Amino acid sequence: MATLSDIAVSAAINSLSAIVFLLAFAILRLQPINDRVYFPKWYLKGIRDSPTSSGTFVKKFVNLDVKMYLKFLNWMPAALRMPEPELIEHAGLDSAVYIRIYLLGLKIFCPITLLSFGVLVPVNYTGENFEELKANMKDLTYSDIDKLSISNVAPGSNRLYAHMVMCYVFTLWTFYALYNEYRIVTKMRMHFLAGERRRPDQFTVLVRNVPPDVDESVSEHVEHFFCVNHPDHYLSHQVVYNANALANMVATKKSLQNWLTYYTNKFERHPDRRPTTRTGFWGLWGQNVDAIDYYTEQIETLTKEEESERERVLNDPSAIVPAAFVSFKSRWGAAVCAQTQQANNPTVWITNWAPEPRDVYWENLAIPFVELNVRRLLMAVALFGLIFCFMVPIAFVQTLANIEGIEKVFPFLKPLIDMGSVKSLIQGYLPGIILKIFLILLPTVIMTMSKIEGFTALSALETRSAGKYHLFLLVNVFLGSIITGTALQQLKGFLNQSPTEIPKTVGVSIPMKATFFITYVMVDGWSGIAAEIFRMVPLIMYHLKNTFLVKTEKDREQAMDAGSLTWAVSEPRIQLYFLLGLVYSAVTPVLLPFIVVFFGFAYLVFRHQIINVYDQKYESGATFWPDVHRRIIIGLIISQFLFLGLLNTKNAANATYFMIPLPILTFWFFRFCKGRFESQFRRFPLEDAMKKDTLERATEPNLNLKVYLEDAYVHPVFKGSTEFEKPTVIDGEEDSPLVATKRIFQRDGKQEINEDDTSEDRIETYNGGSKAGP
Amino acid sequence: MATLSDIAVSAAINSLSAIVFLLAFAILRLQPINDRVYFPKWYLKGIRDSPTSSGTFVKKFVNLDVKMYLKFLNWMPAALRMPEPELIEHAGLDSAVYIRIYLLGLKIFCPITLLSFGVLVPVNYTGENFEELKANMKDLTYSDIDKLSISNVAPGSNRLYAHMVMCYVFTLWTFYALYNEYRIVTKMRMHFLAGERRRPDQFTVLVRNVPPDVDESVSEHVEHFFCVNHPDHYLSHQVVYNANALANMVATKKSLQNWLTYYTNKFERHPDRRPTTRTGFWGLWGQNVDAIDYYTEQIETLTKEEESERERVLNDPSAIVPAAFVSFKSRWGAAVCAQTQQANNPTVWITNWAPEPRDVYWENLAIPFVELNVRRLLMAVALFGLIFCFMVPIAFVQTLANIEGIEKVFPFLKPLIDMGSVKSLIQGYLPGIILKIFLILLPTVIMTMSKIEGFTALSALETRSAGKYHLFLLVNVFLGSIITGTALQQLKGFLNQSPTEIPKTVGVSIPMKATFFITYVMVDGWSGIAAEIFRMVPLIMYHLKNTFLVKTEKDREQAMDAGSLTWAVSEPRIQLYFLLGLVYSAVTPVLLPFIVVFFGFAYLVFRHQIINVYDQKYESGATFWPDVHRRIIIGLIISQFLFLGLLNTKNAANATYFMIPLPILTFWFFRFCKGRFESQFRRFPLEDAMKKDTLERATEPNLNLKVYLEDAYVHPVFKGSTEFEKPTVIDGEEDSPLVATKRIFQRDGKQEINEDDTSEDRIETYNGGSKAGP
Repeated sequence: MATLSDIAVSAAINSLSAIVFLLAFAILRLQPINDRVYFPKWYLKGIRDSPTSSGTFVKKFVNLDVKMYLKFLNWMPAALRMPEPELIEHAGLDSAVYIRIYLLGLKIFCPITLLSFGVLVPVNYTGENFEELKANMKDLTYSDIDKLSISNVAPGSNRLYAHMVMCYVFTLWTFYALYNEYRIVTKMRMHFLAGERRRPDQFTVLVRNVPPDVDESVSEHVEHFFCVNHPDHYLSHQVVYNANALANMVATKKSLQNWLTYYTNKFERHPDRRPTTRTGFWGLWGQNVDAIDYYTEQIETLTKEEESERERVLNDPSAIVPAAFVSFKSRWGAAVCAQTQQANNPTVWITNWAPEPRDVYWENLAIPFVELNVRRLLMAVALFGLIFCFMVPIAFVQTLANIEGIEKVFPFLKPLIDMGSVKSLIQGYLPGIILKIFLILLPTVIMTMSKIEGFTALSALETRSAGKYHLFLLVNVFLGSIITGTALQQLKGFLNQSPTEIPKTVGVSIPMKATFFITYVMVDGWSGIAAEIFRMVPLIMYHLKNTFLVKTEKDREQAMDAGSLTWAVSEPRIQLYFLLGLVYSAVTPVLLPFIVVFFGFAYLVFRHQIINVYDQKYESGATFWPDVHRRIIIGLIISQFLFLGLLNTKNAANATYFMIPLPILTFWFFRFCKGRFESQFRRFPLEDAMKKDTLERATEPNLNLKVYLEDAYVHPVFKGSTEFEKPTVIDGEEDSPLVATKRIFQRDGKQEINEDDTSEDRIETYNGGSKAGP
Repeated sequence: MATLSDIAVSAAINSLSAIVFLLAFAILRLQPINDRVYFPKWYLKGIRDSPTSSGTFVKKFVNLDVKMYLKFLNWMPAALRMPEPELIEHAGLDSAVYIRIYLLGLKIFCPITLLSFGVLVPVNYTGENFEELKANMKDLTYSDIDKLSISNVAPGSNRLYAHMVMCYVFTLWTFYALYNEYRIVTKMRMHFLAGERRRPDQFTVLVRNVPPDVDESVSEHVEHFFCVNHPDHYLSHQVVYNANALANMVATKKSLQNWLTYYTNKFERHPDRRPTTRTGFWGLWGQNVDAIDYYTEQIETLTKEEESERERVLNDPSAIVPAAFVSFKSRWGAAVCAQTQQANNPTVWITNWAPEPRDVYWENLAIPFVELNVRRLLMAVALFGLIFCFMVPIAFVQTLANIEGIEKVFPFLKPLIDMGSVKSLIQGYLPGIILKIFLILLPTVIMTMSKIEGFTALSALETRSAGKYHLFLLVNVFLGSIITGTALQQLKGFLNQSPTEIPKTVGVSIPMKATFFITYVMVDGWSGIAAEIFRMVPLIMYHLKNTFLVKTEKDREQAMDAGSLTWAVSEPRIQLYFLLGLVYSAVTPVLLPFIVVFFGFAYLVFRHQIINVYDQKYESGATFWPDVHRRIIIGLIISQFLFLGLLNTKNAANATYFMIPLPILTFWFFRFCKGRFESQFRRFPLEDAMKKDTLERATEPNLNLKVYLEDAYVHPVFKGSTEFEKPTVIDGEEDSPLVATKRIFQRDGKQEINEDDTSEDRIETYNGGSKAGP
């Protein structure tokens, strides 16, 4: 096992790599040329202009102000400066609540760390189990870290009572923090929903599985049904077209357009030589043709095809899927329809809240009930396979991709491979690289599985994918690191052990893996977060696009990739840190400071990112919080069982009787919180709907809701290609006046106002008040 | 192990005892004096009059018609004769669906029995495992039954494939039968609800946890809240009084009244001597007083107290609990309110469908949210204790109640006990009697637990109790019989075994327990059902009351105890037979005919009982069916796992891979059925509500709903003591004209109409059409 100094070295290396990332970020972001990579959020809000409009030519690309380099860490206090209500308005509730997860981590683990270091570390350190063992076995080696962990307490010692009591204290503190956070988030959500401006989804319900009718079209059938069953509230509806083929055409056309732009630019720069391309796949082979003519022609053909397809979809009744967006005259009417059962056959006329228009996943709107059930079954089996047989295809590819295999497929590489150093490189790194590739592909695979399951909103897809990924990390990373062997071998092992044996097996090897997880926290947590802020991939992509495709300011806007919080991947990863912290809190307290540093650093970085970078694709109003809460509770229960198993191997007196109420209490706490809060995230109370309706009726008595909702739920391809990626309807900023950028500097205590400086330590004071709708 | 002839003897004994019960029933029910014991349902419907009104004195009590004794089994075809729609109208949907559970048993097990006897019995019989074993071990004994079971197939034999395939066939057949039955019951329920006449609960929602308000009373607060949030639909509401003390007084008064009547009757019969009583507990000790004076005085005092309590409850604001029955102008309005969330805090303004007025459990209407959660936690722990420590208090009482203990407490019994025969009697039977007493008390204990859990309707209480009792039977009867030892020991054993080991342990002892369960089916099933129709306890109680208390016809009516289906006890017991049938279907097919006979016989008996005897306390519209379905599926999955365990001990080739899809498929089938049907039992679709509203508005445009609903949900004690047990509001019979009894005899082919004959093989032709409301 590693000693304290080993850990210190590892910490130094990882801190260094984190600092390198941070330094690179600090320097690159000061360059005006990277401004759109590191501050896209402000461009999207229309508050920041391109720095190219003023200043000398050099100044456009490189920042020459030396003073600013000296303050390269100033982004940290800047990130903390924006108060939470402003943050919610600026970045949305989802993002604001997302970074509260890190804050929750700090809230839970700071006191726990202090307590463990105050109580458990002294108890462990004076335990002298190793000294005794050493007296018996001369060759036993142990490190300082082990002396600080529970391993240094002798089996059956009364000192274990300290650990048991602390486990109760930690659990109760976690309860308190969780309950408090759930309460706050609920309040934030309620406040957010109450303050939200008018949005189409407040009035709209998604109706799926409209039953077929011989006499009526889908549209007529929907209208009749809702006119009869919601006579006082039904307003209008929008049928859903199966425009998947059309959407593909639009996407293809866009890509062709990019190529055309690329070759046009190339031609403009070198007017002496017309660029050519090959007609085959990716321009790699095939006939050599004039590129500009070729793509112009291709686009023309596609435009015609698109036109006819558009005609077909709009006129062919079979292109209408049996689903519709039904709008109501009031939020009350929509809330009622979304929460009740319409027909006595529960598999038809299924009503749910409509997602935001930009949140709709159009491909899945037309899946019938039985097919949906079969898909879920298949995906459940597939998920099981993915988690427990994850290593099988990797091992298979790894055996294929050995030296002999490569030499067989690419004989011309033989002489190169046979060189000693290359050979060892391939043998050493290839398996690792293959594993890494699989791991990178994994979120895509999981997302595809969720899509096959048939969810109709992007937010639902992300939530479900997060659940799957969480399970994967739990089994393949957490358990997989503690017990060596593939998940399938673990499963076999578990099935052949008794239920009381499993926590023992896992529990006993937990203290031994502490140093591994400390390193893991530093590599994946510290360096990973630093890499996050550096944004390498968007940086490269932006500059590539900027060089080859951008002609106008509008092109540059499109080349900018703000990205968004990848909920489906990040949240399960945070959960892993919660789990590690909870599991090791009573076992090896030394791990806790590393977790605390991770949470603090990540909070800082992500707060900066959501202020300056990310642009969320949709706004769910923190609907994900019950999942976060549930997964932390799962981690808590796992930690309790493992600790119980560990105690049993330590022959602790009465440990089972003393500890068994803990998971029961935890489960009860989960049920209690679920009953107390969850429905506020799932249903829309009539009281609130009525309040908003009444207020709106008083303030805007002449509102024509029908016109307002007319085009809200039209498939994006029918809105013209420019609006394809960003439908106008819901963009809350559109009617707020574009405010001239004003940045307030706080430099050495005095305040300056500067019109177009790109420095970073500033607060945007835009006219926030004008946007607070009813 | 028992041989076939042992089983035959046992079958003979049990058939004999069943036949004795049946004979006693057949004879006793022909006596006019028992008419109210065996046909109370008809009296309650007002269709049958007391036979005492005509005929000679002897004929009033004894039936002298010899011909009728010859046809003593005629009740059987008579029970089958009433068609199902008429049965639903006569006895309610709950009862009609309840007996369909037995029918479902027949549907599942008849084909399975035929198939097993056709395929598995020959396969097993020619297996010759025992012959081979016998060749090796001379002292091995085996019976004919064992030769017919899977035990006679050698380990690793290819014959086991027959069992595996049959297990699939049985499962698929069970799926088909279950799906079909769920579909039929759903249709019956929909039809029943659609045809139901106007009832107060269709318009009413039970609102609990009304938040306290400083300015308003509960009543005002409720009115304001619903006027604001359901402005177009709110009609009126009824607050709930905490009248538990008052209800107790009314009950006490009734019991005193009974004693007064008893002594008055006694005095009338012997006018020479005034009866006396003692003032102590149950009149056993205390001062000797004149009984009539004493009770008259007691009743007077209590009447005064009751009056003042009634005043207090009606005028004291603190006697109003924070719950209310809120009525709406239409079924649509009520359906909406019941299915939606009202306030943004989900722990206040909780709305649910109001139970029928007679179904309300008044005591539990005022429990706040947190208390409810704590109660559920405590009861969950208590249930665990009850199931797994059931034997502990029994063993404790059994040790206390030994000879020495009794001699110590009652020294005067010493000479009696020291007699040899009495001693052995006590030692032999006392433990058994104590166990029996505990088992008899068990349903009451379970029901009390459900009451503490805080459910607000009798139907919910019964459903939850059934769930608890089912678990108890599963652990203590099924597993307890297979693996000897108390449930706690079993639990310890299971916790220390691996999950794959448990099915093996249980599975391997299953074939050995077949003869035990065959005997169990005969004793508990056959004789138990025969005892059910005999109605010993009601018979005795009725005659006791009739002798001592009855003066008028109305008294006699009250002395009559029709009883009802004890859902919480009977349904879990039926589930045990399903479980046994499914577990043994592929293992020991010989058990199946006994199960089939049970289902057939029980179907017959209960059909007779619901036609002639039981009077249901409430009508839930077969809401319980999803539970029945779920528990049969649980039985199916248990049987599959046990069979898998058994196969593993048989070294069957690839058994695990072949059998593991089966439970997965079963679970999926469960989910599928749940999605397809369950919500039809839980929610009330708006389409149906709207249909009924529209129809009612067309047929009765001048209906004053407010007056109709005015007193519907008044606490029964405020309705006067006579109506206490049977509130008038919902009794569907009240407004149907009382039809003169007409009984059609079918005797030897010709039809007679007889006005007051008490013979049984008849069909009541009452004016059923007059009751079919809109």
